[in-house]
Amino acid sequence: MSADGRALVANWQTLQQVFIRPENEAVRATLVKYMEQILFGLHDFLRAHVGITEAESLIKLSERFQDSLIHEHPRRKLADVIQGIIEDLAPFAVNVASPYFIGHMTSAIPFFMVHLQTIVAALNQNLVKLETSKVFSIHERQVLAKLHRRIFKRPGEFYRHHIQRPESTLGSFVEDGTLANLTALWVARNRCFPPEKDFEGIESEGLAAALAAHGAERAVVLVSGMGHYSLRKAGGVLGIGSRNVLAIDTDNHYRMDTTALQNSIRDLSASDSRTRIIAVVGIAGTTETGNIDDLVAIGRICRRHGIHFHVDAAWGGPTLMSERYARRLEGIQNADSVTIDGHKQFYMPMGCGMVYFREPQAMDAVAYHAAYVNRPGSVDLGIKSLVGSRAANSLILGSALDIMGAGGYAVLIDHGIETARAFAHAVRNHPLFELITEPELNIITYRVCPPAYSERLTAAGNRERRQLNRALNRINKVVQRLQREAGRSFVSRTTLLPRGGMETVVLRAVIMNPMTDMHIVNAILEEQAAIYADWEAGTAGLTS
Amino acid sequence: MSADGRALVANWQTLQQVFIRPENEAVRATLVKYMEQILFGLHDFLRAHVGITEAESLIKLSERFQDSLIHEHPRRKLADVIQGIIEDLAPFAVNVASPYFIGHMTSAIPFFMVHLQTIVAALNQNLVKLETSKVFSIHERQVLAKLHRRIFKRPGEFYRHHIQRPESTLGSFVEDGTLANLTALWVARNRCFPPEKDFEGIESEGLAAALAAHGAERAVVLVSGMGHYSLRKAGGVLGIGSRNVLAIDTDNHYRMDTTALQNSIRDLSASDSRTRIIAVVGIAGTTETGNIDDLVAIGRICRRHGIHFHVDAAWGGPTLMSERYARRLEGIQNADSVTIDGHKQFYMPMGCGMVYFREPQAMDAVAYHAAYVNRPGSVDLGIKSLVGSRAANSLILGSALDIMGAGGYAVLIDHGIETARAFAHAVRNHPLFELITEPELNIITYRVCPPAYSERLTAAGNRERRQLNRALNRINKVVQRLQREAGRSFVSRTTLLPRGGMETVVLRAVIMNPMTDMHIVNAILEEQAAIYADWEAGTAGLTS
Repeated sequence: MSADGRALVANWQTLQQVFIRPENEAVRATLVKYMEQILFGLHDFLRAHVGITEAESLIKLSERFQDSLIHEHPRRKLADVIQGIIEDLAPFAVNVASPYFIGHMTSAIPFFMVHLQTIVAALNQNLVKLETSKVFSIHERQVLAKLHRRIFKRPGEFYRHHIQRPESTLGSFVEDGTLANLTALWVARNRCFPPEKDFEGIESEGLAAALAAHGAERAVVLVSGMGHYSLRKAGGVLGIGSRNVLAIDTDNHYRMDTTALQNSIRDLSASDSRTRIIAVVGIAGTTETGNIDDLVAIGRICRRHGIHFHVDAAWGGPTLMSERYARRLEGIQNADSVTIDGHKQFYMPMGCGMVYFREPQAMDAVAYHAAYVNRPGSVDLGIKSLVGSRAANSLILGSALDIMGAGGYAVLIDHGIETARAFAHAVRNHPLFELITEPELNIITYRVCPPAYSERLTAAGNRERRQLNRALNRINKVVQRLQREAGRSFVSRTTLLPRGGMETVVLRAVIMNPMTDMHIVNAILEEQAAIYADWEAGTAGLTS
Repeated sequence: MSADGRALVANWQTLQQVFIRPENEAVRATLVKYMEQILFGLHDFLRAHVGITEAESLIKLSERFQDSLIHEHPRRKLADVIQGIIEDLAPFAVNVASPYFIGHMTSAIPFFMVHLQTIVAALNQNLVKLETSKVFSIHERQVLAKLHRRIFKRPGEFYRHHIQRPESTLGSFVEDGTLANLTALWVARNRCFPPEKDFEGIESEGLAAALAAHGAERAVVLVSGMGHYSLRKAGGVLGIGSRNVLAIDTDNHYRMDTTALQNSIRDLSASDSRTRIIAVVGIAGTTETGNIDDLVAIGRICRRHGIHFHVDAAWGGPTLMSERYARRLEGIQNADSVTIDGHKQFYMPMGCGMVYFREPQAMDAVAYHAAYVNRPGSVDLGIKSLVGSRAANSLILGSALDIMGAGGYAVLIDHGIETARAFAHAVRNHPLFELITEPELNIITYRVCPPAYSERLTAAGNRERRQLNRALNRINKVVQRLQREAGRSFVSRTTLLPRGGMETVVLRAVIMNPMTDMHIVNAILEEQAAIYADWEAGTAGLTS
């Protein structure tokens, strides 16, 4: 290819070169060299930066991204683009792969995931229809069946019948958990307002007509107060209204209070009620604390009342791969639908969400056809899908399952849960910290609570407790921010409202990187202790 | 890494190896060799198969994808997985990169797109929030501004003000055009039913409450009968009802009849009307025929009535890169929102959709916050977004704009439009074919219409015309299917309903692969002629 950037693609001849890859050895070697640059240039850079990022301020950084013009002529060749990303962008990226980055649900991924993503791009299939994907539509059906079986454990005969049956839909790939939850509630909404005499169904006639046809005034979704914000958003998108995604109280462990759920359902289902309950959502791994609702009890309640039972297992779903801990999700097999994220604990590249339905006909409630694609009777996967065009992410997951086995994923899951437990032990034994939530999966919340505070909290009356708590909230916000800005490690923060308690700012750690061991955890805790000590020495603290 | 697949990741020690890439030269060489295998093993395979795919039947193929168990132990190493994809899957994939594949909007992509996709996977940033993306959030804002400026042409000052201003949102990346249209109509719906006294807004309270608060009974969206099916789906998802996405008549060129639009708006807006018009959608490149609505006229009508004007430019949007043809989209700058697909005529890998809003505050109508992410006042891009977690697709588009320049894209656009025009000329001059739609962009529809039929059609009465048309529909279905099954080339089919005419099955060609030249187009036409001749000789045709 041309050595001159300007000539690279701005004319017909050079343009062809980027579509037809020349076949001589020298060009092949160049293309491979670029990949080497990507694999190792980026990798070496990231390895050199153990922390999150350099501390250049956002405002200063954004000054370099002000040009809003698309230039007529090419400005850079691929090699320069790659070099520019390595030198100018990567230093200000977030090193999510660092074992010191334990603040969010984004982490290191196995190296082979990058190769698998490259394959998907090179094939560039479009799963919306068979004519642009053929074997990959069939392969995707197999991957969906494998996950479905792991979740719902239906008999082998069930899968032999449905796995390749065009009319059956065991699940759907979407971009993330938000769209998976949206898809699940879309299906649940439509099944809650089926066609009747003189009513074509909610999908066709809309929500207002559906409520009228079914003698109702309002439709609601029930989920614990720990539900992911995507559920409120789904309520808004679907026309239900985000405030009609009702928050059920939680118990002392941030799990749905199932008695409160029963009471709510009883009140909402009273014979004169004009409210319809579209779905109850159980959570398998709350975003903030990693707790798991009592899925057995919720499932039983839903069955009794004939309500759609959705489980948001975006985070916790892959725990099903672990022989040791799968039972913590007991009851998930009774769900009507389940959300699982691929880019979380299946360690896939961003972004891959999935939604599964126990009944292979459930998604019939959201089928769409067109004259040029997804014709009735075809095997096109796009017929029952929120999204249209999409990549073969199922190829990545299916291949990863072959490479890792359930056992490989189990090693990761077990490491996360057991490290979180050891983390909690270390917090409990450290005089500066207070454990807020005992990890049920691999998420732990805690806070800085110096001895002077804990002693006074024990003795204090309500008013003083509130004061102390506000001071602790300030301290924890400061410590979290200073640690993030120092750039060596990253723990996130959130605000919890314990049952009957006060708003509590907590530090939140997510242990999913297998390289995050107790040596690193202890170093992070000591850094926080040192940050606090420095800050406390420099301010007129409450205790001074 | 281990030579034994079983040992690869099923225990702790080997698992670490897939996360920490060993640093010795031998292992580096292996990782690069895999990339070579992907880049050239796949490529060489695809090059050897000029057609769509081998003709193995779906049913036979699906017999190999019946196993629904996730195995406990690893089954294959990465090298074997790659080899398996090349040998067992790729032969039954669809070679969308072939210049003989002119049936759909999926085509060859420049080789560097594969490298860029690899970079995105290697960095694995999550654009939902700054804490997992930092510089890439800022970079994305720049890419959004570049496209926004190309579409809306607002003054430089506008972009200087908004490009990096956290409170401003110029657009949003989503998985595809379906979700881009959904996002646009979601925003339009919410802006149509803003908060009032005792009404918090439709997003919070839902559609039924919104209609009541605004004294309405129904909300509708207007689009021509050529609208993409995702618009109906958006109506269903948003609670409006898919049948309330009303089809406005088209003119003889499959463009919205703007007089019919005006009449509809007049009827729906009558003073006693209980209907609210959420949006009018203009199409810049219909999926079936590539025609462009009169965006100037529609924009004027919308402004007069204060209606949200959305343009679905999923297909035609990148025409704005061509100096020669950009004016065909004249009026798009007056839209309130615009859909453009990245994986279509920006030649990005599957799947990348985008939606742009003229007003930087428009997306405020769909903002969501949470305690652990997207806190009010933060610069997190996930605050105003349908999707949550997502990859840095903006890095691919931004880099491609640098590598190609507007000029590089213009070469592709111009080639598509001009080849389609030459295609139409060839069809018109061929005795066997009838041109159905003159290409306005790079999509052409035509049909097999043997001379015996065209002569009789000219003279026939209504009843005979219907008979002849049905026979032609059958013929075109057969020819399209036989050509697809022969596997050398692929043209799609759809069914059009010309104004005042009969349902017409047509062959549909999409010219986006720069390697598709008139030599190939003529070969495809000759193959269709030969298929028809063979088939006609073997059946008792209408003319025999």
